[in-house]
Amino acid sequence: MEIFLDCLPCMLRQVLESTRMISASEELQQKVIDECIEILSNYKSYKTAPELCRQMHRIVNKMTGVADPYRHIKETNISTALRLYPHLKEFWSQKDNSLDMALKIAATGNVLDSAINLGLDIEDCIDDELNKAFAQCDIEQLQQKLKTAKTLLVLGDNAGETVFDCILLEKLSDLDISYGVRSQPIINDATSEDAYASGIGSYAKVLSTGCDAPGVILEECSTDFIELFNDVDIVISKGQGNYEALSNSSRDIFFLLKAKCSVLSDLLTVNINDYIFKYAPSK
Amino acid sequence: MEIFLDCLPCMLRQVLESTRMISASEELQQKVIDECIEILSNYKSYKTAPELCRQMHRIVNKMTGVADPYRHIKETNISTALRLYPHLKEFWSQKDNSLDMALKIAATGNVLDSAINLGLDIEDCIDDELNKAFAQCDIEQLQQKLKTAKTLLVLGDNAGETVFDCILLEKLSDLDISYGVRSQPIINDATSEDAYASGIGSYAKVLSTGCDAPGVILEECSTDFIELFNDVDIVISKGQGNYEALSNSSRDIFFLLKAKCSVLSDLLTVNINDYIFKYAPSK
Repeated sequence: MEIFLDCLPCMLRQVLESTRMISASEELQQKVIDECIEILSNYKSYKTAPELCRQMHRIVNKMTGVADPYRHIKETNISTALRLYPHLKEFWSQKDNSLDMALKIAATGNVLDSAINLGLDIEDCIDDELNKAFAQCDIEQLQQKLKTAKTLLVLGDNAGETVFDCILLEKLSDLDISYGVRSQPIINDATSEDAYASGIGSYAKVLSTGCDAPGVILEECSTDFIELFNDVDIVISKGQGNYEALSNSSRDIFFLLKAKCSVLSDLLTVNINDYIFKYAPSK
Repeated sequence: MEIFLDCLPCMLRQVLESTRMISASEELQQKVIDECIEILSNYKSYKTAPELCRQMHRIVNKMTGVADPYRHIKETNISTALRLYPHLKEFWSQKDNSLDMALKIAATGNVLDSAINLGLDIEDCIDDELNKAFAQCDIEQLQQKLKTAKTLLVLGDNAGETVFDCILLEKLSDLDISYGVRSQPIINDATSEDAYASGIGSYAKVLSTGCDAPGVILEECSTDFIELFNDVDIVISKGQGNYEALSNSSRDIFFLLKAKCSVLSDLLTVNINDYIFKYAPSK
């Protein structure tokens, strides 16, 4: 997926937010913004939004001297999600532990950070989101593949959301499951540490993709990961960043996400905030 | 008021939105964004946000060849507001035609564009907003000044909102009232044409400030306007843009606005979306 113009102001806003998590110094914030505008002016030299986004966040890390500005937020999100976990299991059980609902729960995890940020009542907010149906759900294609599949690779998205994924992994536990995470901290995306803290280790082999962008850029991934990615029977890719990086992939992928901005909702011809489980055949 | 870093991504987003109102050409949108990032990289050479904002919108005008991209939106907002006018008068009459409510109605006009954009039910939405009390209301200072005042200058904000202002002007009709507007179209701000189309001419002398920024930058205003501004007994300045340009003014001003972003709400120590009628003594 190319870089959309709408992403540029959004990224600039995000690096400012990220810098403020670390420092109240306006001088420092200004220095970060100045460098990031410089990077922004060269946006055409980046192939995907996650690559440009990473470069801008590297400036934040370099200039603040903090490698993981979202550490505290990720910890909060994971612990909130773990507190919600029995509630999610109960909800799932009321829905007959269906595959459809396991997918929906995994997609819903994506709203955790916004709900916390907005100071909303998490349980209420999550219930509202869980009860929203998918705008598009290619579950039949998944069920078809599950008839013969032996291996699954899930590409994780945010820390916290990872806890919600455990239900999907439990549902698909007949498969040999791998769970791919970022090689280094980037925004609030899950690393190995976050995945283990979320309990993913009980259901899947956690492995680094070898890439530290907020989206799996295959050319940057480790040889082991690329081999796995190409060989597994099913790939489920979570979140917008992974969609942006992998939407032109040569292998077939199931994309599971919430369309959180107009760029993605327009592209997927759904409404903003809709949930999607979309099968993309190999190109 | 200085330029806040938060304003930079917000302005970039706005020029993209503005360009798209005129053209669906991605090539053109990209050219506008490229030039605007260039301007953004020099943000420190601008004294206030309205000046930087104007410069970026001039790029939109130049590159699209359209002098007033918001023409259609302004017309829609004015006609919607005129349709609402009897409803506003009825609401005001139920509140005993009070000065407090006339101020509140004038401030509430500011939500018209967002309500229309979000496709909300305008009447419902406006009623909800009308019923919100001011978070800060320095009405006593105004009442004090009204005991002796003979002249009033209102500095207008958006087109459409202008219709809501008529009620305040009617309430203060014992005064000799002037209503200042932008000299040229800029975003959805009111020009003379918009003010007359809104009915302002029945209550006040409509005059151009001589400045075409989305905020009254005094140094750029006409001699006549500056003289009036300095000589009138009371100035009521509407909206964020005028606050940004005039918050350090040497004369006393009543600022009437809704804090629509965190920059303004933090600065005014209110919550986002709060309404404020704030008296700023001369500096």
